[in-house]
Amino acid sequence: MVICDGLGDRPSIKNGNRTPLEAASAKTLSSLAREGSVGLLDPVAPGIRPGSDVSTMSLLGYDPYESYQGRGSLEALGSGLSLKTGDVAFRCNFSTADEKLKIVDRRAGRNDYRVKELAASVSKIRLPGIKIEFKATVSHRAVLILRGRKLSRKVSDVDPHEAGKPIPACNALEDSAPAKRTASLVNKFVRESYRVLKTHPSNLDRVKKGIPAANIVVPRGAGTLPKVETLNQTYGIRTACVGAVPLVRGVCRLAGMQLIDVPSATGGPDTDYLGKARAAVNALKQNDIVVLHYKAPDVLGHDGDFEGKRRAIERIDSAIGSAVDEIKRTELDCVIAVTGDHSTPVDVREHTADPVPLLIHGTGIPSSEVQRFDERNAARGNIGRIRGIYLTPMLMDLIGFSKQFGS
Amino acid sequence: MVICDGLGDRPSIKNGNRTPLEAASAKTLSSLAREGSVGLLDPVAPGIRPGSDVSTMSLLGYDPYESYQGRGSLEALGSGLSLKTGDVAFRCNFSTADEKLKIVDRRAGRNDYRVKELAASVSKIRLPGIKIEFKATVSHRAVLILRGRKLSRKVSDVDPHEAGKPIPACNALEDSAPAKRTASLVNKFVRESYRVLKTHPSNLDRVKKGIPAANIVVPRGAGTLPKVETLNQTYGIRTACVGAVPLVRGVCRLAGMQLIDVPSATGGPDTDYLGKARAAVNALKQNDIVVLHYKAPDVLGHDGDFEGKRRAIERIDSAIGSAVDEIKRTELDCVIAVTGDHSTPVDVREHTADPVPLLIHGTGIPSSEVQRFDERNAARGNIGRIRGIYLTPMLMDLIGFSKQFGS
Repeated sequence: MVICDGLGDRPSIKNGNRTPLEAASAKTLSSLAREGSVGLLDPVAPGIRPGSDVSTMSLLGYDPYESYQGRGSLEALGSGLSLKTGDVAFRCNFSTADEKLKIVDRRAGRNDYRVKELAASVSKIRLPGIKIEFKATVSHRAVLILRGRKLSRKVSDVDPHEAGKPIPACNALEDSAPAKRTASLVNKFVRESYRVLKTHPSNLDRVKKGIPAANIVVPRGAGTLPKVETLNQTYGIRTACVGAVPLVRGVCRLAGMQLIDVPSATGGPDTDYLGKARAAVNALKQNDIVVLHYKAPDVLGHDGDFEGKRRAIERIDSAIGSAVDEIKRTELDCVIAVTGDHSTPVDVREHTADPVPLLIHGTGIPSSEVQRFDERNAARGNIGRIRGIYLTPMLMDLIGFSKQFGS
Repeated sequence: MVICDGLGDRPSIKNGNRTPLEAASAKTLSSLAREGSVGLLDPVAPGIRPGSDVSTMSLLGYDPYESYQGRGSLEALGSGLSLKTGDVAFRCNFSTADEKLKIVDRRAGRNDYRVKELAASVSKIRLPGIKIEFKATVSHRAVLILRGRKLSRKVSDVDPHEAGKPIPACNALEDSAPAKRTASLVNKFVRESYRVLKTHPSNLDRVKKGIPAANIVVPRGAGTLPKVETLNQTYGIRTACVGAVPLVRGVCRLAGMQLIDVPSATGGPDTDYLGKARAAVNALKQNDIVVLHYKAPDVLGHDGDFEGKRRAIERIDSAIGSAVDEIKRTELDCVIAVTGDHSTPVDVREHTADPVPLLIHGTGIPSSEVQRFDERNAARGNIGRIRGIYLTPMLMDLIGFSKQFGS
């Protein structure tokens, strides 16, 4: 299952009324689409604009309306931390604040110089009645876990959204004692982080080097561990994921997947497209489902970069081409699905609710006879229009692992 | 959002195996369909034959399975009455009954001569323990509200369905004290209405003029106020409705829409098509969504009038043509959706569950490349087949007001 993050797009007026996928030279994808089936996929449902957490859960067969419990827990899982029922996890930024706790730089220069040492100090912060776990992840990012009784994920984000604004308080989002207690703990944590970090030797060193001080930690996206079955529990299969983005790794870990590290993968447009595809094919030897995730189209969609998104799609196409060759060479009997987790149109620069194209290729799968893999042809494809949560069950059925409902 | 009531149809054997929309010359709709996207819309779900209350709620994004609470409350809202939680509202007919309370004319000659005075007397009826509100609306129609504690909408209609039948009793539809009490109050109200009206001077005048006496009021369609968010509450948008039919006005008022009056609109085939379209375009200047509702296709579908329905569609097409011209002239950036709330095939003369054609036109919306807007082409369109409740979220996403689910 190849997930091209943010793949879908709208016809771009500035670019000949085409989408990046329509403009791309994507021979492998078009060949797979022609030989296989194509259609449109609504990540959640028509008109629902999904975050990547919710949409990736959907693609793996988890109904987000039942199972989604916030993003922080998925980020924590994807960052290698372990979560227990009742823990509340947050994604955090190291930020730069002034003495009045106004934000100067939300991302502390996007610079991770000596951030590991800062994180070690933050992780020693003590909060009344609970334990904390704190880990720096990528760049200026980190994950915080609050562990204890009577905590709630129903608290607001500590996110000033833009520089120059004061750091907002964390507030309870429902009238309950756990929510109020959690909000109060988060506020204490934020203040403590500033106290610990503002004169930290590593920060003094950063400032000396002209790097913004990472002198406060702001948590957002409170989440708890979703109660779901792994794909192994549901279908009795072995699964793996090749992906570099912590959130996606978190969702895949939730699904019980082995996380495969590709050292040359970056989680961005400069990733090792081919290396990831090779790792995915390799993983097919020991797994029944392998997820291969490319973040680039989404990043470039957010950047409004039509040409960049087109080129990223071409690099994905080329990498899948190599994978297909390798699959043929080793005579692996394999179903290939390619889709996006949502649309990130370059003219919108945000996620939208537009459906994404989907192709499914493999033995016994009807031919769509379309000439290209793109939004236009997918809209007239032989799969029709389906919801994201149906994709994994469909694939399980095609590879012979579906469970019969009824008898 | 243009709602053509009862737009959908089946191929009519008597009419060259075409639908009225297929037979119509609808240049504007076909041009919008070609440049924009088309598909099929199931107002509620495939195979579900909806009333206009349920289908209009769906089109505005309200799941009727969650939110529908009977028709009477929507009629009351659309007639300008205010409803409180706990109120039970009924749509009523003034009818003509004989001395044995057998119905002579269900609609009292469809004549509203001096009905306002009759209504004033009915509204003075006293019922034990509750208050009533009563308002004559259009023709022989009226609305009744019962206001008090422990009332229920689970009571049967007082509707003999045809002349010559005795007026049936209102019965509790569930074994509960509020339902039994409400049924008893309705029965008292019906008897009281006859007592008040039978010798009413305005009725004596009607009879003298050869108009059937409007000497009894029969309530049906008990409804309570649905607990829903307005579109403003959900999306933070301003909305308005151009429609003359009380039910549609009621649903739109429930959604928080401003109701725009077009004095020349009649709510029927003889309405001012162009005047309504003009009012809708005008309302676009101050609103984010404007609903423009035409009742005619449904009326003519119920009448089994193929040619009439075809002509009504052509008049709608022409009015939308003027609206499109005005939108272009004023450079309004606007998404236009045209659909029906359900099908009313002329050969069936009732609502059916057939899906209705849908077109969505605007900047960034993919081209369907179909030649015409009709059932046949919509069935092969690039939107595929969607449920009615997805339409408003899809439109909200296209105009940039959708809220992200997840992050």
